Amino acid sequence: MLKKLTVVKIGGNIIDEPVALAKFLHHFSIGAEPKILVHGGGKLATQMAEKLGLPTQMIDGRRITDEPTLDIVTMVYAGLINKKIVAQLQGLGCNALGLTGADAGILLAKKRQKSDIDYGFAGDIEKVNASQLLNFLRQNLILVIAPLTFDETGQLLNTNADTMASAIAIALASHLEISLIYCFEKKGVLENPEDDNSVIEEISKEKYEVLKKEGVVSKGMIPKLDNAFAALENGVKNVRIIHADNIVTKTGTLLIL
Amino acid sequence: MLKKLTVVKIGGNIIDEPVALAKFLHHFSIGAEPKILVHGGGKLATQMAEKLGLPTQMIDGRRITDEPTLDIVTMVYAGLINKKIVAQLQGLGCNALGLTGADAGILLAKKRQKSDIDYGFAGDIEKVNASQLLNFLRQNLILVIAPLTFDETGQLLNTNADTMASAIAIALASHLEISLIYCFEKKGVLENPEDDNSVIEEISKEKYEVLKKEGVVSKGMIPKLDNAFAALENGVKNVRIIHADNIVTKTGTLLIL
Repeated sequence: MLKKLTVVKIGGNIIDEPVALAKFLHHFSIGAEPKILVHGGGKLATQMAEKLGLPTQMIDGRRITDEPTLDIVTMVYAGLINKKIVAQLQGLGCNALGLTGADAGILLAKKRQKSDIDYGFAGDIEKVNASQLLNFLRQNLILVIAPLTFDETGQLLNTNADTMASAIAIALASHLEISLIYCFEKKGVLENPEDDNSVIEEISKEKYEVLKKEGVVSKGMIPKLDNAFAALENGVKNVRIIHADNIVTKTGTLLIL
Repeated sequence: MLKKLTVVKIGGNIIDEPVALAKFLHHFSIGAEPKILVHGGGKLATQMAEKLGLPTQMIDGRRITDEPTLDIVTMVYAGLINKKIVAQLQGLGCNALGLTGADAGILLAKKRQKSDIDYGFAGDIEKVNASQLLNFLRQNLILVIAPLTFDETGQLLNTNADTMASAIAIALASHLEISLIYCFEKKGVLENPEDDNSVIEEISKEKYEVLKKEGVVSKGMIPKLDNAFAALENGVKNVRIIHADNIVTKTGTLLIL
């Protein structure tokens, strides 16, 4: 019986480093608990764009996705990164199934409206197909999800992986007890960005507001924490923001609820 | 109840032509019959290799897959082509799920041994996971399969799409009544390669041997026909080799058994 689920988001420098990624996947593969891995794209898409002579435009950490850029992120996220992760997990005995939001219609989105900024083919999630995700999980499949969605016209859209992980966790929270873990290359949310050991152990919504005002939490950490609190406010049992190495406990089991 | 299944292989120039591909997918999406689409890579992988300054080596129509080439075919086949097809089918109301052989472990292969020729990361199919494919089909998912497999160590491998379609059809033939259709840009097997209207209506194994001896059937058509006869000899109900446009009947329904 499916009762609990761990949703893990892996991003940043881990994906760009084959050794770090292999270590993380080894840890992730431990245990038979149901789990979903959402991955970002690291710097590989930017590097591929450079090789192909296409300029990369980022605004507030978000990629401006024109048509050639959409092709690149589709190749890199859904092709190279997703399938290498899936094959490596299979090699570790973990029955992984790689998906984008378009596959089996799991994540329907809407193309972001042009405002001051035209993000191009960027998608904001409209609907998570929870029953399809549950069908896959009941077959003991480990889902590996690339940060792409689709709209009703069949257009692929680039979508933020942090937001995707949170949206999936929320959609499944009425069916299962969900733990959401954001893994990256830092030890956690830092009091002092220069000091890797200044991890803030626990952050309430009130404390988060103070940290934002004081400027302790800034830039890319703000959308990540917004996604984390959105999950907590919508039924997700707990959210952790940790270093990828800390996904296993000291006793060697996968960190779950 | 799942009883019949159509396995369609689409390849060649159709995939390279957005208009021809859209037309084909529109036809393929008609009707609610269970179906599997296996796609090749067309010339897109070769074009991408060229853009990235990597030489493409082909021997007897098979790509020599060194490590950078494997990355390219993974990006192009599993990323760009597979996900565009999946999203377009979703836009046509067809609940498509894109897969490589590694996903859910559906197609386990073995790296081809070096002989006179080192094909690099080329995979020969060892095992088709029929029960997993049936699980997906029972969920009314339309499977879209890219020509990549994996081995037990978690290594992705490049695999011929014609062979893949035949292997899948054979593996499911003991469970379902299977029709296998190879779609390409010609009207069929031609008596005279220069004359598009010289289609040979029906080919028995005996006739095939004669056509081979006479040189009427040669080059790339030989492995295609070998795959076709392997399917027929292993329980597949019928095999057709047709132009992609002819996948719909004159009455507008999808060509099935």
